[in-house]
Amino acid sequence: MEQKTNGMKKFINDPETVVDDMLEGLLIAHSDQLKSIRSDNRALVRADSPIQGKVAIATGGGSGHLPLFLGYVGKGMLDGVAVGDIFASPSSQQMLDVTRSIHGGEGVLYIYGNYGGDVMNFDMAAELADLDGIRVETVVATDDAASMPKGYEHQRRGVAGMFYLYKLAAAKAEQFASLDEVKRIAEKANSNVRTMGVALTPCILPAVGRPTFEIGEGEMEIGMGIHGEPGIQRGKLQTADEVAQTLVTAILQDMPIDKGCDVSVLINGLGATPLEELYIFYRSVHKQLEEKGIHIYNRYIGEYATSLEMAGLSISILRLDDELRELLDAPFATPFRIQN
Amino acid sequence: MEQKTNGMKKFINDPETVVDDMLEGLLIAHSDQLKSIRSDNRALVRADSPIQGKVAIATGGGSGHLPLFLGYVGKGMLDGVAVGDIFASPSSQQMLDVTRSIHGGEGVLYIYGNYGGDVMNFDMAAELADLDGIRVETVVATDDAASMPKGYEHQRRGVAGMFYLYKLAAAKAEQFASLDEVKRIAEKANSNVRTMGVALTPCILPAVGRPTFEIGEGEMEIGMGIHGEPGIQRGKLQTADEVAQTLVTAILQDMPIDKGCDVSVLINGLGATPLEELYIFYRSVHKQLEEKGIHIYNRYIGEYATSLEMAGLSISILRLDDELRELLDAPFATPFRIQN
Repeated sequence: MEQKTNGMKKFINDPETVVDDMLEGLLIAHSDQLKSIRSDNRALVRADSPIQGKVAIATGGGSGHLPLFLGYVGKGMLDGVAVGDIFASPSSQQMLDVTRSIHGGEGVLYIYGNYGGDVMNFDMAAELADLDGIRVETVVATDDAASMPKGYEHQRRGVAGMFYLYKLAAAKAEQFASLDEVKRIAEKANSNVRTMGVALTPCILPAVGRPTFEIGEGEMEIGMGIHGEPGIQRGKLQTADEVAQTLVTAILQDMPIDKGCDVSVLINGLGATPLEELYIFYRSVHKQLEEKGIHIYNRYIGEYATSLEMAGLSISILRLDDELRELLDAPFATPFRIQN
Repeated sequence: MEQKTNGMKKFINDPETVVDDMLEGLLIAHSDQLKSIRSDNRALVRADSPIQGKVAIATGGGSGHLPLFLGYVGKGMLDGVAVGDIFASPSSQQMLDVTRSIHGGEGVLYIYGNYGGDVMNFDMAAELADLDGIRVETVVATDDAASMPKGYEHQRRGVAGMFYLYKLAAAKAEQFASLDEVKRIAEKANSNVRTMGVALTPCILPAVGRPTFEIGEGEMEIGMGIHGEPGIQRGKLQTADEVAQTLVTAILQDMPIDKGCDVSVLINGLGATPLEELYIFYRSVHKQLEEKGIHIYNRYIGEYATSLEMAGLSISILRLDDELRELLDAPFATPFRIQN
């Protein structure tokens, strides 16, 4: 059967079943680590959950961003995830099902990106969980420095830097810290991380079948969101060094980092960008930070939050102190990433 | 400065410095695991090499395939790699430098893909190493079932299935087995693995600046090589299930697998294909094998051997026995992949 492509080229069966088919494949592949708690597979939790006495962490969001969101469920990371359609929020009921399933008696922390539908549904799920006697706290990731100017930080979008909120809060939860303490770490991570992205090509929603916007030949767009939200500057494609300088400069203007400070750097590919280019970019970022006397304590280079087959990348910088450094070092194991 | 793009969109500084810049970034990022033994960075070895008493394993090949080749140097994996320009063989001198540097007294095994330039240069390096008193053996990976018909297996190209040759031979070497034994495992892995790929779009060589061939809108090409070598069938893009069926059927016709047998499956993205699509594809592969009574013992899903920003994927199936199963389970840690 010829695929209903409308001109797009994707390995799918039907635009309507993309998420279902993907989830089915993922659950077959990782049945030792993940389990599904709904017949529609839109709520996934750690195979060993609930963990009694541990604060549980839930996330959720639209599909199309793998390994975000469901790739971060696992040991030393998150306890559960609600899964939406491509670029669409999961329902509050799906979030509530996750919450009930992972609750180990010490409350649940929601960590997710700042998008209207997600905020509305997670808030509703938190209210419903409260009726069940489950205490829920929320930290909304707002790391995308391009999405709103300084002074409006809390209105910014959440993008790849969310990885650090997950990682650090989860490491704290694994120490059997209280909900307040785990929340404090997630908030601290959010305050200490900034992301700036750049896109070269748009992505194509399977159900739409054509790019939802265009970026001209030889052009790039700085600050574009992971759903194609408009950026802050469109112009001629520059060299990797120049683009890296623009992004790093914007981050450091937004969040000054003292000389001698330790940071973690995440170079994130948005989907179609070769790993080779991420390393070329990392080289530039390293040199710039080194010149300013800022030390890269560790780095993550690869795909952490994608936008289907968008070509582009983002850089996130996390300002570290002793507490965050120790939490960052803790091991984790998920279907997508293992750190040990 | 506006990038010299010739119309292509890449995060690079200059088409001439792509490999140098990439290697510099990679060495800065992973200095704890890798070291460079040449001023041109074209020969990389494990930071802890040579390991006395262990058979050393070297590989090499052109750039543009990350994590192939240099991503597989690390504990439980390879000892060294010679790095060529984009899609071009490294020199015999670079291979010889790797060989000398990693030799731990028990000989060196070369494992690399079957491409003319690589074969010529590795053979020359082996002869030169012999003059140094270093015993070298060679296993050339020929897993691409599409590249030559049955009966001409030894003339086939090496593609993503090479991962299994590395993994299994390296696990054997870590047990301090003899060179003959390590070579036997690499040969056994090569006999037991088949790969079939499919491409949707070509890739663009930085120095060329335009696609080296075209695949029509709505078309796919089955059996295309990772340098754009022609495939065996071009036609209308089909559904994921249909494409998966075509590839799995071709593999099983080439290498029959008995009912009840264990296999390992590798679903490899060629560069631009979203992880979501690889999982949709894995679902199909799993169902087909299950129907035939073949059991998937483990699976690898992600980018293992890419072709810059080519959209496409490949499936490799490795036929397992007790010996290979045990070697597959051994832990490894490289800059790109950790298994534990």
